[in-house]
Amino acid sequence: MRVAGLISGTSVDGIDVAVVDIDDGIRVVRSTTVPYPPEVRAAILSVSNAATHTSTIARLNFLLGELFAEALENAGVPLETIDLIGSHGQTIFHEGEAVEFLGRKIASTLQIGEAAVIAERTGIETIADFRPSDMAAGGKGAPLVPFLDYQLFRHPELARIALNIGGIANITVIPVNAKPDEVIAFDTGPGNMVMDAIAPPFDRDGERARAGQVNTALLNRLLADPYYHRDPPKSCGREQYGSEFVRETGLDIATATELTARTIALAIERYPNTREVVVSGGGAHNRYLMERLSALTAARVTTTAEFGIGVDTKEAILFALLAYQTFQGRAGSLPSATGARKPVILGKISRGTSPNPGA
Amino acid sequence: MRVAGLISGTSVDGIDVAVVDIDDGIRVVRSTTVPYPPEVRAAILSVSNAATHTSTIARLNFLLGELFAEALENAGVPLETIDLIGSHGQTIFHEGEAVEFLGRKIASTLQIGEAAVIAERTGIETIADFRPSDMAAGGKGAPLVPFLDYQLFRHPELARIALNIGGIANITVIPVNAKPDEVIAFDTGPGNMVMDAIAPPFDRDGERARAGQVNTALLNRLLADPYYHRDPPKSCGREQYGSEFVRETGLDIATATELTARTIALAIERYPNTREVVVSGGGAHNRYLMERLSALTAARVTTTAEFGIGVDTKEAILFALLAYQTFQGRAGSLPSATGARKPVILGKISRGTSPNPGA
Repeated sequence: MRVAGLISGTSVDGIDVAVVDIDDGIRVVRSTTVPYPPEVRAAILSVSNAATHTSTIARLNFLLGELFAEALENAGVPLETIDLIGSHGQTIFHEGEAVEFLGRKIASTLQIGEAAVIAERTGIETIADFRPSDMAAGGKGAPLVPFLDYQLFRHPELARIALNIGGIANITVIPVNAKPDEVIAFDTGPGNMVMDAIAPPFDRDGERARAGQVNTALLNRLLADPYYHRDPPKSCGREQYGSEFVRETGLDIATATELTARTIALAIERYPNTREVVVSGGGAHNRYLMERLSALTAARVTTTAEFGIGVDTKEAILFALLAYQTFQGRAGSLPSATGARKPVILGKISRGTSPNPGA
Repeated sequence: MRVAGLISGTSVDGIDVAVVDIDDGIRVVRSTTVPYPPEVRAAILSVSNAATHTSTIARLNFLLGELFAEALENAGVPLETIDLIGSHGQTIFHEGEAVEFLGRKIASTLQIGEAAVIAERTGIETIADFRPSDMAAGGKGAPLVPFLDYQLFRHPELARIALNIGGIANITVIPVNAKPDEVIAFDTGPGNMVMDAIAPPFDRDGERARAGQVNTALLNRLLADPYYHRDPPKSCGREQYGSEFVRETGLDIATATELTARTIALAIERYPNTREVVVSGGGAHNRYLMERLSALTAARVTTTAEFGIGVDTKEAILFALLAYQTFQGRAGSLPSATGARKPVILGKISRGTSPNPGA
């Protein structure tokens, strides 16, 4: 079955597209990223977890549906060869922990990018809105990527860790021949966020960090943060490592890069049997960071490219896989990762135009 | 198949529930209305087509999912006997005509009441979000009720009109033995809105109107509005007949009731073959209005109660039927009513918890 996955992440750079063939395994046919027009990116950022007008959310939802459909249309794979689409959409609000709201405890999330528009424009059944189903079952709606990590990297004889270095870094721990409920996933701490804030837009290949001097006293003080030493489950927010963190600590790029590598290594050390660490995310492009990770961990450090998966396309592939699972009537969440009471069939199915119209 | 339909209308009074058995026909098993808690109603009104915070919409979406599920749980029909749910949700924004938005022409709509929550709480597959699919196909996403009217009232020998007197009054014209594309639907003008604004909350049985004097000069002036004489398709907005209309015209209750009856009759007169007018909506409770309609039209005027359908439950039944259509892979829209380019399978399917969890 040929399935397309679509997502725009929290960085709001653009729409990641992956077209994959799924049978016993997952083979990537095509992956690409389509940048948002600047005015659309600005509109998304302005409604994300912010005051706005209901009309703006409603209109943006339909507009993003059009843009997601066009991103796939222009991906270079004939639409008529694609059987199914999984679209994550664009998150504009996420609150995994319940808060008091009108007298109830409510956790919630909001993704936009109207699936009915994607289904209609492409003529392909589209599954979207994956996070609410997990949250309805008591989960945090995140992380969802461990389900893909489990499919891709589970091995009968090797214990592996999938490491994604996005804004925040997180790992999926996959023991030898793991069962789904043996998978552990959590945030390790800063990913690219702190480094990018110091050396915007990013420190290419980590060359500035490599040339710099680590401030050992500052590093040790930051590493003493109890978060890094606490048992999972745990997750950290973007706000924790924002520009205020950089200003307050006075971090330089060399020390920030070392902090990132060392906090990731601390998390990996918890699982001493780990033989391979498979890296994805923007941080996998940072050559110096990758070298430091290799030096700091006993496991072999490689990237998803070794498995035929570009380091920037794992999430789009995830939503292709989750759509496939839902289409097959199978669960797509790992309760051990999201905290849900049980695995659930994720997402909502838009069937699109009837081949057999009428009553 | 036993299907539940759920909707909260634009009046935001509460959640209408209808449980129906659908096979060759539609038999109502149970119908009820569950009022919203006042603070929830206030929150819905405050986000509807208004400035708000994205978090409020996200949280309200999940909260309404809980309330919709509870409304069904408390409806007095065992959940284990229900096969499928169709939930319209609560509209908080609707713009059927495209407007310029970030350089594109975008029509949009936004219903809340998270279907994943309804599916999870009830354990029943839930179909929701019916309007976007029609809009993606170029329709206005409304009216959807003509599809039900067509199923219920099409007759091999009788031309019928289904008349719904809500805030606005609208008719579905169903010629003898009609094909789907022969159905016509449009707003006739004011429904209860003007009468209710003059005699809040409403003129019980129309007794105040019956006792009053019609201001003929004012009535004739208002009836000259070209809207009433224009060919369909046409639709009127709530704002058109709001409190400003009452203030500007100086309408009294007798004249307002006569205006309502006469504008409905003008619309019915366009279809002189009509033998029966089947009324639903709050206006069907207004005895005097019903008498005036009988006097003004050549057709027999009756209500949906004659067909086993309470005058206040037609919309909830509609969403049970539309869910059933989607479940069967069949279209649920009438392009002749919504203006869409073609009939489409409406809504999004939330399957809920897997009976067969795991990869």
